[in-house]
Amino acid sequence: MTIAPLDDRVLVRPVEAEEKTASGIILPDTAKEKPQQGVVVAVGTDEDLQKVLSAGDEVLFTKYGGSEIKLDGVSHVILQRGDILGKVVR
Amino acid sequence: MTIAPLDDRVLVRPVEAEEKTASGIILPDTAKEKPQQGVVVAVGTDEDLQKVLSAGDEVLFTKYGGSEIKLDGVSHVILQRGDILGKVVR
Amino acid sequence: MTIAPLDDRVLVRPVEAEEKTASGIILPDTAKEKPQQGVVVAVGTDEDLQKVLSAGDEVLFTKYGGSEIKLDGVSHVILQRGDILGKVVR
Amino acid sequence: MTIAPLDDRVLVRPVEAEEKTASGIILPDTAKEKPQQGVVVAVGTDEDLQKVLSAGDEVLFTKYGGSEIKLDGVSHVILQRGDILGKVVR
Amino acid sequence: MTIAPLDDRVLVRPVEAEEKTASGIILPDTAKEKPQQGVVVAVGTDEDLQKVLSAGDEVLFTKYGGSEIKLDGVSHVILQRGDILGKVVR
Amino acid sequence: MTIAPLDDRVLVRPVEAEEKTASGIILPDTAKEKPQQGVVVAVGTDEDLQKVLSAGDEVLFTKYGGSEIKLDGVSHVILQRGDILGKVVR
Amino acid sequence: MTIAPLDDRVLVRPVEAEEKTASGIILPDTAKEKPQQGVVVAVGTDEDLQKVLSAGDEVLFTKYGGSEIKLDGVSHVILQRGDILGKVVR
Repeated sequence: MTIAPLDDRVLVRPVEAEEKTASGIILPDTAKEKPQQGVVVAVGTDEDLQKVLSAGDEVLFTKYGGSEIKLDGVSHVILQRGDILGKVVR
Repeated sequence: MTIAPLDDRVLVRPVEAEEKTASGIILPDTAKEKPQQGVVVAVGTDEDLQKVLSAGDEVLFTKYGGSEIKLDGVSHVILQRGDILGKVVR
Repeated sequence: MTIAPLDDRVLVRPVEAEEKTASGIILPDTAKEKPQQGVVVAVGTDEDLQKVLSAGDEVLFTKYGGSEIKLDGVSHVILQRGDILGKVVR
Repeated sequence: MTIAPLDDRVLVRPVEAEEKTASGIILPDTAKEKPQQGVVVAVGTDEDLQKVLSAGDEVLFTKYGGSEIKLDGVSHVILQRGDILGKVVR
Repeated sequence: MTIAPLDDRVLVRPVEAEEKTASGIILPDTAKEKPQQGVVVAVGTDEDLQKVLSAGDEVLFTKYGGSEIKLDGVSHVILQRGDILGKVVR
Repeated sequence: MTIAPLDDRVLVRPVEAEEKTASGIILPDTAKEKPQQGVVVAVGTDEDLQKVLSAGDEVLFTKYGGSEIKLDGVSHVILQRGDILGKVVR
Repeated sequence: MTIAPLDDRVLVRPVEAEEKTASGIILPDTAKEKPQQGVVVAVGTDEDLQKVLSAGDEVLFTKYGGSEIKLDGVSHVILQRGDILGKVVR
């Protein structure tokens, strides 16, 4: 069971920010609008959005306005396109 | 007797969130903007909306701004498109 | 004498919500944004609006922003399209 | 001397609401946003507006945001299209 | 030396409202949003605006948001299109 | 070294308002939204803006929202199109 | 590892404002909305934005609303197009 987001919404599974080693991403606690790291689980029905985001993408997002749910015991968040800052590229 | 929603509105019958087992959806009480679960009863006259939502769809929604009514003794809510977060897929 | 609403406005004659029997519509007093029931008396000059609403339609509406008047001693309200939630279908 | 309103503005001469007989319009003092009755003196330069309003039309309007002036000793108000609720039809 | 207004702005030289005789315009001090009278000195670069306003037009305007300057010792105000209520027609 | 403004932004070098002689521009201290005088140094990448403003233009502007910087020891301000009231014409 | 910004977002590495010599840029501490200096690391997926900004561009920006992150131990900020004031031209 999962959620198929509507329109420009995105279902994301937050992951702990990576180890604070010199080669990782650090999301400072002090930031006014602290970003979070996660994995895209499903992309909304908006076709334009589907061109720039896919399931499996690692993303940074701001949680402002997102809705938290648990799927099979795992925390997820339903975001809007404007909450996604960018993809993590390795 | 029922309600045919106007424009981008959706008539939804809220259902109790599923059992809090490992395989269900949990809608945390602690969430800032707690989503709710329901079943679409009727979709508004907006043709674009009718492409993405149908009667019978199980949905997650945020109640912010929705209007509560009772139809034949059963609680319903009239929502706007932007209140629907996504569909429950089994 | 009556009022011909301008643009996307709608002239509605509020009616008492139906008896609170199991087969009627109940508009709960406790609802944050309590809807009301009425009959469309006249639809505005907006052609798009005239495709979805007609005089005689029974509607649910939220009064927020509407203007109250009396016509021939009977209370009416002039609403905007966005105040109409849907039609009552029997 | 008169005023030719610009764009979507309308010059209106308010009239006292009609006698509170059973066959007139009553504008309740208790209404949150009390409408007023008037006669259109001049319609703005907006061509779309000129299709729905003409000089001589009797209208109901909300004064919110209108500007009061006196022309030849008679009170007038310059309104915007959105302040006009509808026409009085006899 | 003068000012050529940009975009939808208008340079106006305020004039004292006309004598409060029965045949003039009276701008009541009691009005919530008191209009003022003036003469258009220059119209902005917006072509659509130039179709409805010309230098020399006598106008009524609301000063809300306008910027006051003095040109050659004479008070002027730089307004936006939306501040112009209409033209005085004699 | 200079700044090439992005989009509809304009780099302006403020100049002292001209002498308060009868033939100059006076920017009254008492004005609610006091305009300032300056010279356009560079116009943003927006093509529509480049049709109405050029480097060297003398302008009046309101500083609301502008960003102050110093270039080679001289104060400049980066404005948006909407902050420019008009050009000074001699 | 880096971040590929979404839509109209820009990944920028802030740099210390240049020495306060007569030939540099000075970003006054006293400015109401103090701009900052940085280098564009990556431009979002928006094609229109890619026409006016490229990786390596030196920019001035206002941090209002930006999200701070650390990449490989170095502070970065994810901005929106509207936060970029202009490019530094040498």
